[in-house]
Amino acid sequence: MSIRIGILGYGNLGRGVECAIKQNPDMELAAVFTRRDPADVKILTEDAPVCRIADAADWKEKIDVMILCGGSATDLPVQTPEFARMFNVIDSFDTHARIPEHYANVDAAAKEGKKVGIISVGWDPGMFSLNRLYANAILPEGKDYTFWGKGVSQGHSDAVRRVEGVKDAKQYTIPVEAALEAVRNGENPELTTREKHTRECFVVLEEGADVAKVEEEIKTMPNYFSDYDTTVHFISEEELKRDHSGIPHGGFVLRSGKTGWDGENSHLIEYSLKLDSNPEFTSSVLVAYARAAYRLSQEGVSGCRTVFDIAPAYLSAKSGEELRKSML
Amino acid sequence: MSIRIGILGYGNLGRGVECAIKQNPDMELAAVFTRRDPADVKILTEDAPVCRIADAADWKEKIDVMILCGGSATDLPVQTPEFARMFNVIDSFDTHARIPEHYANVDAAAKEGKKVGIISVGWDPGMFSLNRLYANAILPEGKDYTFWGKGVSQGHSDAVRRVEGVKDAKQYTIPVEAALEAVRNGENPELTTREKHTRECFVVLEEGADVAKVEEEIKTMPNYFSDYDTTVHFISEEELKRDHSGIPHGGFVLRSGKTGWDGENSHLIEYSLKLDSNPEFTSSVLVAYARAAYRLSQEGVSGCRTVFDIAPAYLSAKSGEELRKSML
Repeated sequence: MSIRIGILGYGNLGRGVECAIKQNPDMELAAVFTRRDPADVKILTEDAPVCRIADAADWKEKIDVMILCGGSATDLPVQTPEFARMFNVIDSFDTHARIPEHYANVDAAAKEGKKVGIISVGWDPGMFSLNRLYANAILPEGKDYTFWGKGVSQGHSDAVRRVEGVKDAKQYTIPVEAALEAVRNGENPELTTREKHTRECFVVLEEGADVAKVEEEIKTMPNYFSDYDTTVHFISEEELKRDHSGIPHGGFVLRSGKTGWDGENSHLIEYSLKLDSNPEFTSSVLVAYARAAYRLSQEGVSGCRTVFDIAPAYLSAKSGEELRKSML
Repeated sequence: MSIRIGILGYGNLGRGVECAIKQNPDMELAAVFTRRDPADVKILTEDAPVCRIADAADWKEKIDVMILCGGSATDLPVQTPEFARMFNVIDSFDTHARIPEHYANVDAAAKEGKKVGIISVGWDPGMFSLNRLYANAILPEGKDYTFWGKGVSQGHSDAVRRVEGVKDAKQYTIPVEAALEAVRNGENPELTTREKHTRECFVVLEEGADVAKVEEEIKTMPNYFSDYDTTVHFISEEELKRDHSGIPHGGFVLRSGKTGWDGENSHLIEYSLKLDSNPEFTSSVLVAYARAAYRLSQEGVSGCRTVFDIAPAYLSAKSGEELRKSML
């Protein structure tokens, strides 16, 4: 029998989950839940219904894992605990500072519902976090580095769009190659914000906008741009659509460390991702952890978990025996 | 109370474990066990005894985890099951083809002794295996690549040393940069053995040896060299000692895969290691998994495990709460 997955929220992430389910023969899409009028939501899977979020409770016995595809700012802090009372749930909650609070809320709710909730699943938090943990456990004496990009930052793109005179915009976060190389060479550099990443903006102006003023306003914007070297390109709406409609991302997690009686030997552990589609990759991670949630729940586990608490074998459709034979 | 570690076998790996224990404040070295006369074995730790392997059973209550530092060919197939009846054990068994058999033997013994045995811990098998598993679970439609090096292969160095006329030698396995780049560019190449790695030998000749004959014999040696492009350098004993006495290694695990309804988006996951000392890095992984074995045993678990079966949090000295706060 397949693992029956529900998708709650049908934006880029929800659509990515739908695509990922198609790649996993042990899973099937049970239903998509939306805040919109279901009649207005067209999904890719032919035989799955689109339902109202308000009707989700009717699906308690028909869904093994609900994947929550809302945003971290306002959706997930409410939805994940709420639905963890009824379903095994997975979310991609990514507000790092609020993870302890979210964990506590989901843990209480999931225990009450005797369900499993796995939070903060994706690549950062997620695969990057895992790599930080493994590398720190192996090399206790060392230094961590995380670089993001090259990729589109939704938050920074939105910030540029809010500038007066800007019609549309995309912002790329780009790791500084020289900084990455210094880390790889074992130089253990101390890097400022400016030394780690640059920012590049592609901006479509409103008619009659003041080019110099827009550029100045972007480059000096506190929190978002003032601490970075930022390049602003003004392009046409057609160019933006043609060259910048993708949502690529990625990045690097590195740890350099020493071993030996006197720390005489150096080591470098590096993990990197190069992603054509940030939401589709995140969705693929969510779906792998949905398999883990299902299995843990079958074993009688309940409560909140993160990627740190899940043995890797739970993510794979293969048996332990197959895994030892083919991948160890 | 510290986790009390025993080291069984005091070669490069055992010494590496000793150094790694020093970096982990929650652990202490209880004793080193050797086949040699303990009086002849000088260790680095001042307050730990060196004992005979034959006396290990006397330490049953004084050691929490025994780390087995013997070889995979003849030591570990016998020792790991034998000691798993008395101790929680960790080994770095790396004969990939015999892992299922070794697993079964250790599992039976560990269950009998109500102990935990974690086998095939290190970087390959070990961290590389983990990365293959995670990447396959996330990107079910894709292709795996593993490259080793640049690093010293002990087996190949030994093979060169057995050639008549060779006094001493070191062999490096080197990944082919063009092949790595093709993988990174998402070309999904089909690579032959020759296209993935080259081999480089540094050879010290016996007096009066036939240079051409030695070179020919190395390059055409079946299994070891005949399927590779091999370079042979003849150097002096001093040069070998000066420039080639380290034991560096490393490598790359990559998976390229597709997502999207029609597989329209490409992704690349890459994990790499650059190690000054192969045995010290392996030892550092062994010690992290010793922590996991101790904790699992405290929870009442028994039987054989691999890196696939261990939740990452078990490797870290930090609490779940600290981990979520600092690394997620």
